[in-house]
Amino acid sequence: MFLQQTITDFSSGIVSPIASMPLLATVEAEYSPLVLTGVLLSLVVIYLASKIGAEIAKRLDFPPVLGELVAGVIVGVSALHLIIFPESGLSASDSGVMMVMQWINHLSPAALTSVFETKSEVISVLAELGVIILLFEIGLESDLRQLKEVGYQATVVACVGVAVPFAAGTAGLMTIFHVAAIPAIFAGAALTATSIGITSKVLSELGQLKSKEGQIIVGAAVIDDVLGIIVLAVVASLAKTGEIDVANVIYLIVSATAFLIGAILLGGIFNHSFVVIVEKFKTRGNVIIPAFIFAFFMAFIGSAIHLEAILGAFAAGLVLDETDARDELDELVKPIADIFVPIFFVTVGARADLGVLNPTVPENRAGLFIATFLMVVAILGKVVTGWAVFGQPGINRLAVGVGMIPRGEVGLVFAGIGSASGVLDKPLEVSIIIMVILTTFLAPPLLRIVFNQPVEPPSQEESTGESAILASESQIIS
Amino acid sequence: MFLQQTITDFSSGIVSPIASMPLLATVEAEYSPLVLTGVLLSLVVIYLASKIGAEIAKRLDFPPVLGELVAGVIVGVSALHLIIFPESGLSASDSGVMMVMQWINHLSPAALTSVFETKSEVISVLAELGVIILLFEIGLESDLRQLKEVGYQATVVACVGVAVPFAAGTAGLMTIFHVAAIPAIFAGAALTATSIGITSKVLSELGQLKSKEGQIIVGAAVIDDVLGIIVLAVVASLAKTGEIDVANVIYLIVSATAFLIGAILLGGIFNHSFVVIVEKFKTRGNVIIPAFIFAFFMAFIGSAIHLEAILGAFAAGLVLDETDARDELDELVKPIADIFVPIFFVTVGARADLGVLNPTVPENRAGLFIATFLMVVAILGKVVTGWAVFGQPGINRLAVGVGMIPRGEVGLVFAGIGSASGVLDKPLEVSIIIMVILTTFLAPPLLRIVFNQPVEPPSQEESTGESAILASESQIIS
Repeated sequence: MFLQQTITDFSSGIVSPIASMPLLATVEAEYSPLVLTGVLLSLVVIYLASKIGAEIAKRLDFPPVLGELVAGVIVGVSALHLIIFPESGLSASDSGVMMVMQWINHLSPAALTSVFETKSEVISVLAELGVIILLFEIGLESDLRQLKEVGYQATVVACVGVAVPFAAGTAGLMTIFHVAAIPAIFAGAALTATSIGITSKVLSELGQLKSKEGQIIVGAAVIDDVLGIIVLAVVASLAKTGEIDVANVIYLIVSATAFLIGAILLGGIFNHSFVVIVEKFKTRGNVIIPAFIFAFFMAFIGSAIHLEAILGAFAAGLVLDETDARDELDELVKPIADIFVPIFFVTVGARADLGVLNPTVPENRAGLFIATFLMVVAILGKVVTGWAVFGQPGINRLAVGVGMIPRGEVGLVFAGIGSASGVLDKPLEVSIIIMVILTTFLAPPLLRIVFNQPVEPPSQEESTGESAILASESQIIS
Repeated sequence: MFLQQTITDFSSGIVSPIASMPLLATVEAEYSPLVLTGVLLSLVVIYLASKIGAEIAKRLDFPPVLGELVAGVIVGVSALHLIIFPESGLSASDSGVMMVMQWINHLSPAALTSVFETKSEVISVLAELGVIILLFEIGLESDLRQLKEVGYQATVVACVGVAVPFAAGTAGLMTIFHVAAIPAIFAGAALTATSIGITSKVLSELGQLKSKEGQIIVGAAVIDDVLGIIVLAVVASLAKTGEIDVANVIYLIVSATAFLIGAILLGGIFNHSFVVIVEKFKTRGNVIIPAFIFAFFMAFIGSAIHLEAILGAFAAGLVLDETDARDELDELVKPIADIFVPIFFVTVGARADLGVLNPTVPENRAGLFIATFLMVVAILGKVVTGWAVFGQPGINRLAVGVGMIPRGEVGLVFAGIGSASGVLDKPLEVSIIIMVILTTFLAPPLLRIVFNQPVEPPSQEESTGESAILASESQIIS
């Protein structure tokens, strides 16, 4: 591994034996030192962008994560093309990082494409590990007892937040824009998503994760995520066969419920043995490695039963928050999250193609018109959910509603599947993408406003009793 | 990204539109949720193996890293086949992790192979990031002033440790075993390597990294790494053309020297601005992200100028050790290293094919005979380097020599290139692989013995003044 770089240097002279050698059998392996070089350069760009973006956002009184998203847009497909992905339709020769690699190594076009694809895949996996670790950390910072307390409210908020945008969006598209039923249903479904990653990160930055509003939003976003998977299953089977695959929908509902409840119940047993095991360990990583085994295992299960990896990681965080190792874990996970999570947010920004906002393209113009309507439904349909909260006098209803606004990548997946299955025409697809991008970028500053935050570091000054741990941790960091 | 898992679920019905959709253009992207699932399961296996291995090793009074290597062997190509790589010649259907994936997702053979290759590449990059972060941490724990003090000794040790095994190995193979000159030179070259990763990790575990012996070993291993690249360039060009590419050798010597000295000189300027910049930052990751930008950038440069990424990371660590942010950084890097570094050691073990030790295979028998000779040269040729140390009365010369023994993957790369270029016949290749595996696995317990360590946690009890920081940190962990 150490000297594989050198292998490639000599490969110009001995290409065919290298290709057939047992140590380096596949195409990927042949270029693997180059993949590492590309990953290192990409990470340097991502980290630079995230830090500059976060610091500027902080000084402008926006949540830092918005700065990371915008910095991602600047280095991504919409502007500088430093960090791009094959899915965007751009090729290796459009990528700034790959051009530097090309300049250093004089790669053939085939090699360049292979390295570009593998490097992009590695960065994608790192970004996905980033959001898994983020949700694990959010789980650690959440309080299971408090989540249970607001469980009914969160469920109602989630259901209203799915039903209202779906109904209003579908009906509006059919009546105002005369869209056919199935594409209208697809677009309506895309309006139901909530991006738990963006919302929870902003809440954490505002020091509001442990507030009642924060816990309702996180709980509702988790449930919304599950509902989103079910809605997608319904509309995808509707688009495919014209009928709803009832068996699959029931499977998803049962498995999601069983997984979340089972994880927390089993976790109650496991969390005692966790502390016992950890105390017996004497080598480095005695706490963090068992915690990551649990988190990644739960994420694997979540993903294996066709739910989501982040749900498993969140459940793992909730369970470990109940153990005595909590404070130590919080502190150990923080630097790990600090280096993984920005990869997620920067790549979300980097993937967002703001080209769809350009009104000089005819297809975009039709899309912008529908998009305006979808935006209104997307925002109002989620804001009303705040008024669905019952039995919580004095709660900031607007904050709960606004917390549900960002659609994130979930909405993009709807657009992608709809377009792939031929259900969505180009203007409708573009309008969904615009709606997703704008809700994602608008939510952080809106959340900031509705929580009425002061300019200075929030968690220290606004801390309630529950966020005392948060405050003491941020002192370590700052 | 969130719901891409679901896309794949439906792909059985709508495969062709999915393949052509813009969001998921490439084959890799189509299977990317499966890649994530595979990576998560692989990481769970790797972490479980590393922790169990390390804890057992600790209890048997071996360095924990030996346990991680052996655990890697058990889950790897030699035994359970849970974590294997395409380079081993095994296919996806031999991989335990992929069989679980297959069982969950009912993948086609093509999909299975694609996911296997991409997943393996991601794990490889994570492992390489692991050794980069390890060397960054070793740099942070090393003391530049002390390294400079022992600089001459380290250079002499490195040069003797290259010259003696090379001369003795080549001469012995030619005279005793009647091997032709060029293959004998190749095998001799494979004897020159030193695995800086394994040696420095063991030293760190023994609490001996800051001892005079430890600093000489680390310094010599770094120089040996550079010499190894130059020796490889020489023998590879010799094998290819029968002549030595003098220009390339001069380029490597000049660039390596310029890089290491330049990094440290420029770092002296940069390390003041580092603290100034870090103090201005107000968002999360204010210390760790700039540190990783620097470490990964240096690693990128090291890799881009055809040296090694780990040399850049080591230099970055040395530079940042000179700043006032040192103690904070040490503590932040620790949990990150804890989750990255085990991936490196477990995969080193998982890649080691102990099948070459099987004497019932005729080719192996010839190899075992030569291997015995190579082992003797490999050990004695490095042990004598301890006696090359001058002007250091009372130094543990045996410890210095033993510290240089492990060959690690560097030796395997020699074997691989030699075999690919047709220079090495099968028995000679096998014997080099055996020599590399045995030196790698023998060095940790031998180092333990020569440093004459007690059973209990070393850094707390044996701490000299300089390792006080280490001691206080291990209290946080344990």
